[in-house]
Amino acid sequence: MSLTLYCFGESGHSYKVALQLALSGLDWEPRFVDFFAGETRGPEFRALNVMGECPVLIEGGRVTTQSGVIQLDLARRTGLFQGAPEDRDEVLRWILFDNHKLSAQAGTARFLSNFVPADKRDPAVIAFVRGRLTAALKVLDAHLATRDWLAGDGPTIADFANCSYLYYPEPFGFDRAAYPGIDRWLDRIAALPGWRHPYDLMQRAWRG
Amino acid sequence: MSLTLYCFGESGHSYKVALQLALSGLDWEPRFVDFFAGETRGPEFRALNVMGECPVLIEGGRVTTQSGVIQLDLARRTGLFQGAPEDRDEVLRWILFDNHKLSAQAGTARFLSNFVPADKRDPAVIAFVRGRLTAALKVLDAHLATRDWLAGDGPTIADFANCSYLYYPEPFGFDRAAYPGIDRWLDRIAALPGWRHPYDLMQRAWRG
Repeated sequence: MSLTLYCFGESGHSYKVALQLALSGLDWEPRFVDFFAGETRGPEFRALNVMGECPVLIEGGRVTTQSGVIQLDLARRTGLFQGAPEDRDEVLRWILFDNHKLSAQAGTARFLSNFVPADKRDPAVIAFVRGRLTAALKVLDAHLATRDWLAGDGPTIADFANCSYLYYPEPFGFDRAAYPGIDRWLDRIAALPGWRHPYDLMQRAWRG
Repeated sequence: MSLTLYCFGESGHSYKVALQLALSGLDWEPRFVDFFAGETRGPEFRALNVMGECPVLIEGGRVTTQSGVIQLDLARRTGLFQGAPEDRDEVLRWILFDNHKLSAQAGTARFLSNFVPADKRDPAVIAFVRGRLTAALKVLDAHLATRDWLAGDGPTIADFANCSYLYYPEPFGFDRAAYPGIDRWLDRIAALPGWRHPYDLMQRAWRG
């Protein structure tokens, strides 16, 4: 496979795939998307992905979008990080949880707290989103209190999905010290051979 | 299969599964969850689903949670509404879109607009969530402008996921007249043999 990933450093959703590509030892290159200049809202990008979102994975003429679909497709084709057959529904369950409850809130909280002009930040909205994020983090932390990985006995794409916003340095309402299960699990993922931080895998788009 | 679905009428996420069960002609019964009395936050429910969410599907001793996992599992086992093999990634793509961008916002907007005491509703928060909902509805409407169904040539579980909050009567920032593609598609789904409204499939929990 020779793969191109449309992505940018601040996109945790892109990082789910970039991290999987890196840990799977695949031949890939990032294609920088100038998110803060509005590239994902433009007609060229919309023609690539009607949903207007990163990541997008290109392989020859094949275009795949939605991080969860890309993750499952790569896992299937490489046989890596898909979990044992009996664990695959559990892998999907935590990918859906992440998309719905965790990254959706983490990405929004981080965006509103850091990438919106200070005079346009609404504390009530930020507090609301952070409250929903906290609820999701508690569920994740409770699950990780007695387990090393989210599904089955080893790392899977469910781990790469759920961790994706949790390595970023910008403040958004997540303090590792408050979630010991998550804290140890993030160290466990970061110790996998080939792990790299999102900002080391993808170019940053924020110039603010 | 003899199936029990933990659900309540106001839960669009439960409706995704209830509608699939009804349209698939399966033998099932709803088990009412008293959401507004806090049942999903209690220890008994958490023991069933650590994520604290409806729906939960029970079949004998087998417990399945997360609507998308249940939908895919039922589709696989019945062979109904899963889409043609070449369309299944597209089915999953729209299920993930729904979980992340559409139902997540629609459910929250509807909850905040209707099921929170009037003196605790924050107009800024509601406007923010409705803004995100509008963006998702526009993506869905554009996709449906030239298609009858979200993926492939017939109805799939992707349609049942994305439509799930859009039949409710309570106001939450969705006006069918503003989205002609969605409007026709909702009529199309409602014309499927066996279709029923969420409040006709599941007992309502709201007593306000």
